[in-house]
Amino acid sequence: MLGLMQNHPLLISSLIDFAERHHGDAEIVSRRVEGDIHRYTYKALAARSRQVAHGLDSLKLGFGDRVATLAWNGYRHLELYFGVSGSGRVLHTLNPRLHPDQITWIANHAEDSVLCFDLSFLPIVKAIAGRCVTIKHYVALCDADRLPADSGIPGLLSYEAWIGARSTAYAWPIFDENSASSMCYTSGTTGNPKAALYSHRSTLLHALAGALPDALAMSARDAVLPVVPMFHVNAWGLPYSAAMTGAKLVFPGPAMDGKSIFELIETEKVSFAAGVPTVWQMMLGHMQAGGLRFSTLKRTVIGGSACPPAMITAFNDDYGVEVLHAWGMTEMSPLGTVCTLKNKHMALAPQDKMKVRLKQGRGIFGVDMKIVDPEGQELPWDGKAFGDLLVRGPWIISAYFKGEGGSPLVDGWFPTGDVATIDPDGYMQITDRSKDVIKSGGEWISSIDVENLAMAHPAVAMAACIGMKHPKWDERPIIAVVKKPGAAVSRDELIAFYEGKTAKWQVPDDVVFLDAIPLGGTGKMQKTKLREVLKDYRLPGL
Amino acid sequence: MLGLMQNHPLLISSLIDFAERHHGDAEIVSRRVEGDIHRYTYKALAARSRQVAHGLDSLKLGFGDRVATLAWNGYRHLELYFGVSGSGRVLHTLNPRLHPDQITWIANHAEDSVLCFDLSFLPIVKAIAGRCVTIKHYVALCDADRLPADSGIPGLLSYEAWIGARSTAYAWPIFDENSASSMCYTSGTTGNPKAALYSHRSTLLHALAGALPDALAMSARDAVLPVVPMFHVNAWGLPYSAAMTGAKLVFPGPAMDGKSIFELIETEKVSFAAGVPTVWQMMLGHMQAGGLRFSTLKRTVIGGSACPPAMITAFNDDYGVEVLHAWGMTEMSPLGTVCTLKNKHMALAPQDKMKVRLKQGRGIFGVDMKIVDPEGQELPWDGKAFGDLLVRGPWIISAYFKGEGGSPLVDGWFPTGDVATIDPDGYMQITDRSKDVIKSGGEWISSIDVENLAMAHPAVAMAACIGMKHPKWDERPIIAVVKKPGAAVSRDELIAFYEGKTAKWQVPDDVVFLDAIPLGGTGKMQKTKLREVLKDYRLPGL
Repeated sequence: MLGLMQNHPLLISSLIDFAERHHGDAEIVSRRVEGDIHRYTYKALAARSRQVAHGLDSLKLGFGDRVATLAWNGYRHLELYFGVSGSGRVLHTLNPRLHPDQITWIANHAEDSVLCFDLSFLPIVKAIAGRCVTIKHYVALCDADRLPADSGIPGLLSYEAWIGARSTAYAWPIFDENSASSMCYTSGTTGNPKAALYSHRSTLLHALAGALPDALAMSARDAVLPVVPMFHVNAWGLPYSAAMTGAKLVFPGPAMDGKSIFELIETEKVSFAAGVPTVWQMMLGHMQAGGLRFSTLKRTVIGGSACPPAMITAFNDDYGVEVLHAWGMTEMSPLGTVCTLKNKHMALAPQDKMKVRLKQGRGIFGVDMKIVDPEGQELPWDGKAFGDLLVRGPWIISAYFKGEGGSPLVDGWFPTGDVATIDPDGYMQITDRSKDVIKSGGEWISSIDVENLAMAHPAVAMAACIGMKHPKWDERPIIAVVKKPGAAVSRDELIAFYEGKTAKWQVPDDVVFLDAIPLGGTGKMQKTKLREVLKDYRLPGL
Repeated sequence: MLGLMQNHPLLISSLIDFAERHHGDAEIVSRRVEGDIHRYTYKALAARSRQVAHGLDSLKLGFGDRVATLAWNGYRHLELYFGVSGSGRVLHTLNPRLHPDQITWIANHAEDSVLCFDLSFLPIVKAIAGRCVTIKHYVALCDADRLPADSGIPGLLSYEAWIGARSTAYAWPIFDENSASSMCYTSGTTGNPKAALYSHRSTLLHALAGALPDALAMSARDAVLPVVPMFHVNAWGLPYSAAMTGAKLVFPGPAMDGKSIFELIETEKVSFAAGVPTVWQMMLGHMQAGGLRFSTLKRTVIGGSACPPAMITAFNDDYGVEVLHAWGMTEMSPLGTVCTLKNKHMALAPQDKMKVRLKQGRGIFGVDMKIVDPEGQELPWDGKAFGDLLVRGPWIISAYFKGEGGSPLVDGWFPTGDVATIDPDGYMQITDRSKDVIKSGGEWISSIDVENLAMAHPAVAMAACIGMKHPKWDERPIIAVVKKPGAAVSRDELIAFYEGKTAKWQVPDDVVFLDAIPLGGTGKMQKTKLREVLKDYRLPGL
């Protein structure tokens, strides 16, 4: 027997309709590629998203056709989020930090029909335009009078000329909520990039669960700054959750340096910001140098890679900002866990609460997790046993676009490639990426643990631990370190710094000082590249 | 093109699975019909819910068969919530405050197969058992040794004997998320009662949206006291949202008096409580009399009927408890609006924030609203125009069970029977029930406005305004008043109390003092009954 409730499919268009009707005057503020600050409202966003839909209709794009973007976080990019998906097309956010060859490969694989790009990415577009065989239309996200006369891109449209004169009335189509809404390619550290193909249903459920008090706790009272790029797993879904709640949105555009981010937080009274550790490291450095304080920021979600405990305590103890440590993946839309406390923790002393907060957190409702041993047997949630982490849920992929890489699931579970522990309260802690774990003398050493200890040293700006071949122990860890500007620490001092903080066999055998550690397109440390940099390195005594 | 995300239907069983796995040791505390306090955990709840499922299987109940309850808020009732719906049957919560004839009519209409009841309702069950033609099994929610020897109910089972020895392992079935999960009959002030038939999908979406920071803001850090009965629109969905978040649950059982509720809040460190105004009126009376204070309660949601402003300010100003004014209906699962502030209000002075908080609130995501004039034309959201309120969304009914009352929708919208204004920020305020509005001299007078002004008088415990026929003005308002114990106020004093607070023509023509105002099964004032009580009343001078 079926229930007798109204049938309303979960569609992305319902988010922008709701925001327009209930939060029409809530602000959306963007630092533009042009350099100035742009301000408008959800009402204007909704009207212009409908103009985008008309614009796509005028290009004769069909249902499910891919519209690619190469753009920073800003209002025009947001209009594409709603206009493209709302009208039944698929938004494909390209990562401009990738090499033009990779971008070309990805655009061809996705069979993108249109590419909308910020003018700052014109050099990339020039480099790929001749090789992207499916892209028929190029749209520069600018006014008509800013369009370069000699772009070399045939038929280049300006976004404002393309949509500006169109009707702001548009009846969003109603269709199956399982239809594809957007796609994002993984950074592809091994093999070719593979794409997650999100649906309207998965996006809406993720936006609902992601805004819950046990996740990012988003409300109409928030002013939200997504520093995490909109080309990085849809800025962790924040644009959708923001429209769902009517939160004020603040976009940093291309200015990702510590000074610009800090200024935007202060001038726009941001209450909640989201980004990867490397961005916050820059901002905290800027604040420490200038003795600056936040006046409105209340909480920040940190994910993308494991957040060093030193950063969590710095935000909390020095600046009074609550850190939500979070973990997810492109294949997970991306939210998997967020670290929030439980009722049982409320009476704990601050330092004991902090111990809980350092983990990656509890699965949010909708995400089920398990850890398994090499034979696939489920391991206990005791906070000690660690094994391969698998997940399942309605916003986790079942397959990659075009079936790349075969069926990724194991009995319905998606293997994350992470190694983790889960404690009896369900708090998960990433021990390592499976491929980064260091196997030494039959035991496993977590490269992340070794890095976190180094990061706690006041002279260390960034640290990467990798395993080096060893004839007796199989592998031994070394730590590559970037020092803070003007700071000094010697190899022996840093080795001594580990004393008493970890087991002796987990202390790295050596320290390598570098000017920089290779970062990937999403700001994560690239250990494969680091291994190439250190290919001639030899362990001491070998 | 479809997305490539995992297919997980939204099922109620996923709530209890999640709670067991992630919040196994979170507490569920119940004041029992037996008089004592019972404590256990979500882990135990999950195990016993699965035993309930086995118990239903043993009775050969089919998919979609109805299992009725006549029970207070408590852990066994909660086990039925998950065991009945989780195993594919339909939970039907009967309202024990109705007359046995009504309960019989409803049970027969629903074709209930099983009735599970608290022993305190044995007299009702005895009165209806011979007339409920479809009920084959009666289960008393007690231990075997408490079963009355001479119940007169053939084959009466004790709940504990029925489920106690069964396996705690049970594979919840996977089925269409649109399947019926539970049902609730409206109080039926006109005509026969009609039932809303909720689905698993509507229940899960309602639980997600209802727990958002802009709705009830439920989290794992909460201890939640649903004073609102579990037979009253599923206790506003709180049992589902609690399992979804792992919040501690505290159940009052049959002890709904002010003293018992206050004590439970204090001893169980309740942070969030939910109930109708009449219950809070009793509790505040108890607290005022004893000079008592809350030590843990942070917020309370008040709904079911319009909350008098005097109560909202008393909670806020005198006790430091945030009141979430809310509005909904049985036909809406029930949440429609909750009154929470926006970013733009954050800088307002406390008294200006309070002005916003007095309204019924903004539509939560998933609920769309409109107000229309008598011709069905949509009226503006200006806070002044008022008209019939219509709603739509995925947890609003499309029809009543068995098609009773025909198709209730108007162009896809459900007419609520309320008259309301909506301001430019989307805050809705109920002006009246359509049938209670007083038409005087071509103008409308809100009976709720007249009542709220009377409720602000210190001697008034309860007030009901109704229209009386008038030869010149068509109708004129009078106010029926119940005085607080020991308090005194005269007719003329109360009429004078309106002076300067409202337009002269909106002041009631007369005051009638009563010992009690008729209340319906859900604690709402029954104005039809009041009109019967006052059928011989004549307006002054007529």
